[in-house]
Amino acid sequence: MPKGVPLPENVPDDGLTTRQRRNAPVLAVHTGPGKGKSTAAFGMALRAWNQGFDIGVFQFVKSAKWKVGEEAAFRALGDLHTATGVGGPVQWHKMGEGWSWTRKKGSDEDHAQIALEGWQEIARRIANEEHRFYVLDEFTYPLKWGWVDVDEVVRVLRDRPGNQHVVITGRDAPQALIDAADLVTEMTKVKHPMDAGRKGQRGIEW
Amino acid sequence: MPKGVPLPENVPDDGLTTRQRRNAPVLAVHTGPGKGKSTAAFGMALRAWNQGFDIGVFQFVKSAKWKVGEEAAFRALGDLHTATGVGGPVQWHKMGEGWSWTRKKGSDEDHAQIALEGWQEIARRIANEEHRFYVLDEFTYPLKWGWVDVDEVVRVLRDRPGNQHVVITGRDAPQALIDAADLVTEMTKVKHPMDAGRKGQRGIEW
Repeated sequence: MPKGVPLPENVPDDGLTTRQRRNAPVLAVHTGPGKGKSTAAFGMALRAWNQGFDIGVFQFVKSAKWKVGEEAAFRALGDLHTATGVGGPVQWHKMGEGWSWTRKKGSDEDHAQIALEGWQEIARRIANEEHRFYVLDEFTYPLKWGWVDVDEVVRVLRDRPGNQHVVITGRDAPQALIDAADLVTEMTKVKHPMDAGRKGQRGIEW
Repeated sequence: MPKGVPLPENVPDDGLTTRQRRNAPVLAVHTGPGKGKSTAAFGMALRAWNQGFDIGVFQFVKSAKWKVGEEAAFRALGDLHTATGVGGPVQWHKMGEGWSWTRKKGSDEDHAQIALEGWQEIARRIANEEHRFYVLDEFTYPLKWGWVDVDEVVRVLRDRPGNQHVVITGRDAPQALIDAADLVTEMTKVKHPMDAGRKGQRGIEW
């Protein structure tokens, strides 16, 4: 049965103390064709919220309707923080309804530009250490399609100041991003109800 | 870019209407050696909470310290439901501190018996339709070790009444459970910071 935190398999000769290694900021990537990539990112954000971390979620999806359940729950947790001081503050931004700081929804042709503006805002916030825990949901797609430059993303993330955790989700994560990440998990579909003609349903799919 | 719910790959000749298929209860299994199995289950529970579902979490882990972040966040969401009616009610039960309905912690030798009592309570609740969304966290281990009979679990889950969703997490899910499940995702470790000697840290590991 699992017991607490597992021991590291090896201790690196990096001159860092255990305390320093314990405080190293994490870049996590959830990729692969299976379910649970975003869902696990939001589960991680629950822990971060409970530690009082400032959370910023950035959804790089076209439809504003995605993940309304998680969004509603996190907005409730953010409101709870505002009202009582419990947990941490939460910001939730969606490309699909126009980023909150511009509200520019754009035509279909503008998606590349709007995705790029989303990344530029994130890079600005990282430079200013505005959040402690970032979820860049479905961010692999703008990378895959060349809308946002992978090398620039890797550089900004690698050189990010302070102790800012970043979780990136989406299929087909670019190799350069995987190389830069500390924690990479691939979700593989073994069996899915839609393969048997089952329909998505409330409380499960949204 | 993902757009809403994907179309089913085939429509079954099962005599069910789309509405019936949309309301079919889901049995999901998150298995494999990677991270995110439990975390994705708790992310799913966020959606269920937002739909007002009654949530029951049952943690089959030895240490009561596991997943304190998720537990604290869900207790806050459950309290919010009690206070304001938003979302659904939440119960969170842990084997590690003795199931709440017995408070029997037991010695190391009793773990098999306590795990079995946990399952028996869950089976009773399923028969009574006490929850709408169950998380059986790390439940594959009591199955693997023979503490709880896999065939009985599959029978109870297969014949469960009403519309109760169940998510089971843990490595090495038994084949009979995988066969019975509607949704199976395997989480594979691609890279983990502890391999490089990094330490678990607050807000990420707990």
